[in-house]
Amino acid sequence: MSNDKTKKGREMMARLFGPAGEKAANIFDDVAPDFGQYMTDHVYGDIYQRDGLDLKTRELAAVAGITALGYAKPHLKTHILGALNAGASRVEIIEVIMQMSAYAGFPAATIGLMAAREVFEKANSEK
Amino acid sequence: MSNDKTKKGREMMARLFGPAGEKAANIFDDVAPDFGQYMTDHVYGDIYQRDGLDLKTRELAAVAGITALGYAKPHLKTHILGALNAGASRVEIIEVIMQMSAYAGFPAATIGLMAAREVFEKANSEK
Amino acid sequence: MSNDKTKKGREMMARLFGPAGEKAANIFDDVAPDFGQYMTDHVYGDIYQRDGLDLKTRELAAVAGITALGYAKPHLKTHILGALNAGASRVEIIEVIMQMSAYAGFPAATIGLMAAREVFEKANSEK
Amino acid sequence: MSNDKTKKGREMMARLFGPAGEKAANIFDDVAPDFGQYMTDHVYGDIYQRDGLDLKTRELAAVAGITALGYAKPHLKTHILGALNAGASRVEIIEVIMQMSAYAGFPAATIGLMAAREVFEKANSEK
Amino acid sequence: MSNDKTKKGREMMARLFGPAGEKAANIFDDVAPDFGQYMTDHVYGDIYQRDGLDLKTRELAAVAGITALGYAKPHLKTHILGALNAGASRVEIIEVIMQMSAYAGFPAATIGLMAAREVFEKANSEK
Amino acid sequence: MSNDKTKKGREMMARLFGPAGEKAANIFDDVAPDFGQYMTDHVYGDIYQRDGLDLKTRELAAVAGITALGYAKPHLKTHILGALNAGASRVEIIEVIMQMSAYAGFPAATIGLMAAREVFEKANSEK
Repeated sequence: MSNDKTKKGREMMARLFGPAGEKAANIFDDVAPDFGQYMTDHVYGDIYQRDGLDLKTRELAAVAGITALGYAKPHLKTHILGALNAGASRVEIIEVIMQMSAYAGFPAATIGLMAAREVFEKANSEK
Repeated sequence: MSNDKTKKGREMMARLFGPAGEKAANIFDDVAPDFGQYMTDHVYGDIYQRDGLDLKTRELAAVAGITALGYAKPHLKTHILGALNAGASRVEIIEVIMQMSAYAGFPAATIGLMAAREVFEKANSEK
Repeated sequence: MSNDKTKKGREMMARLFGPAGEKAANIFDDVAPDFGQYMTDHVYGDIYQRDGLDLKTRELAAVAGITALGYAKPHLKTHILGALNAGASRVEIIEVIMQMSAYAGFPAATIGLMAAREVFEKANSEK
Repeated sequence: MSNDKTKKGREMMARLFGPAGEKAANIFDDVAPDFGQYMTDHVYGDIYQRDGLDLKTRELAAVAGITALGYAKPHLKTHILGALNAGASRVEIIEVIMQMSAYAGFPAATIGLMAAREVFEKANSEK
Repeated sequence: MSNDKTKKGREMMARLFGPAGEKAANIFDDVAPDFGQYMTDHVYGDIYQRDGLDLKTRELAAVAGITALGYAKPHLKTHILGALNAGASRVEIIEVIMQMSAYAGFPAATIGLMAAREVFEKANSEK
Repeated sequence: MSNDKTKKGREMMARLFGPAGEKAANIFDDVAPDFGQYMTDHVYGDIYQRDGLDLKTRELAAVAGITALGYAKPHLKTHILGALNAGASRVEIIEVIMQMSAYAGFPAATIGLMAAREVFEKANSEK
């Protein structure tokens, strides 16, 4: 079941998202046992392994794209954490989210800012 | 009608988008004469003037967010040009667009890649 | 196949959209012969017959909602025409579309303004 | 930090949304201190100050557009309250939301109706 | 108020969704008394009565489309139950949802899988 | 560069989409040379190889989901062709698209019907 791509993908998820990343790969094992591996392989084993874009910018792009969707606050929180762990500052994350008001409107941007606050507050409380 | 914020916004649009940027600010003068100024002021006079995120990353975030929308290929082309003019490489732009397949699906990503190709080909032909 | 609801719906479509409205009800007769009647019945035979909202405001609400979708420029043009025929001024239509920049972003709003321009120009040329 | 546009914007927010409006302008002061002012300036200081569309219709257009987005129930509730405070009747608000089933589907419309019920029930309990 | 189409629609909703289906038709009687009938008539009295697509595939198509929207988890749960009651297996439902990662991205697919788990767990606990 | 998953994926694309499928895997070789393989591997080498859902229903689910997106008419045409090649009838495809009016609104459904007409007419002319 495991191969090199999956292994690299899981290491990337652990690096970006910590314990939550390890859990994420198995979160649907009860109802969709292969789904976690597909996501791991395609997203973190293929795309996130690529040269040509540094990991911090990649996670800021993830924050941008998911903020624009509007409906995916839990996934946005995961990637806000990922951006922090990839070296982005809180300010950079906030700037990216605020900017999305221009392309996706203020509701999407405010949902994004709420997600950022929740991630930042959790990080503060864990210090 | 013009103020300092508008002036700075227009300079930013010219820097990012070239002659197209100057045109963009006036493109709806016939049907919505104030719209161009609102966009100039809010997006390029306020948000794009901010410290905390370098201009190249800002434009890559724009590419990410607009790719995720799926329906806005002309606006995406404008910001792909903006990303190039802000110092992003073609490779970085392509990486951001490809990555959006993970969050918004392959149709949105392929529309994004088509937009990138059109901008790159136009840039090639103008050399 | 025809009943009172369908008849009222078709009259409403003709009133709002003119000859295009009569055509719209039959536009998919080749591939989906009942679709036109469903749309006529549900939208124009049920909802648009209701008291409680004047027809002009209803069409401005249609313009607002379809602008926010971003991807439906032909349908938006139909309802911009409908808004004009229901008594809305060009200024009111433009105001509604501009306002959508706040909720759905500037790309959606600019697609809306392009739609409005095309409808207005066609109306000008027919005078 | 405050100017005439911001001042007018804040007055508009207080008029439309009451105490919630005053709070909304400062709600992200901890993570994104300038965001509230940008929203205030662009949306309520620029767009909502414009002639050409009466405030009641503007808020009904907001209800229409945000219902069509589908994902922004809290923002929809804010503008349902705004529509009431701008003089729209409950019936007019419900008609606009129901109508969105035609353009954005029944899930978006039912989320809108749930939002309306919550706002109406809160208003009832405060009488 | 009741007619043959409404009657057939209600029977279809009861067949697909059980007691929840009967409730759904009246759920907005307090704020939007005709809305339930419009939905019943258009969706379950017209479309769902049609030959040409078996009911199981229809409900799997509903699961596909609503998963792609991303924002409508409660409606998705209703149609996952409907798919089960129309004869789809849990495996078929999961396959459809997983597949949506390709067209609408992983966030939409994972929201869908969460919805499926909740419906399956409720069904388990009721056995 | 090629492996077993890629090989199976390409065979699936050729089976579903004919010559267009073979072209699709290489369509971005100029700007994003690995993208075609990622799509081939993840979508057609992984998901479309799975048991648990017959290929015809899978393609009808693709038609449903992509119709609901609203903005991806070219991709929808590809999967309408795929549905035909997987054994779906024109009637089944039309039923799925019509049904999306309930979840995503009439604009999305009419864009879907236009896509179906174009695919059907091309198929007629090639007979």
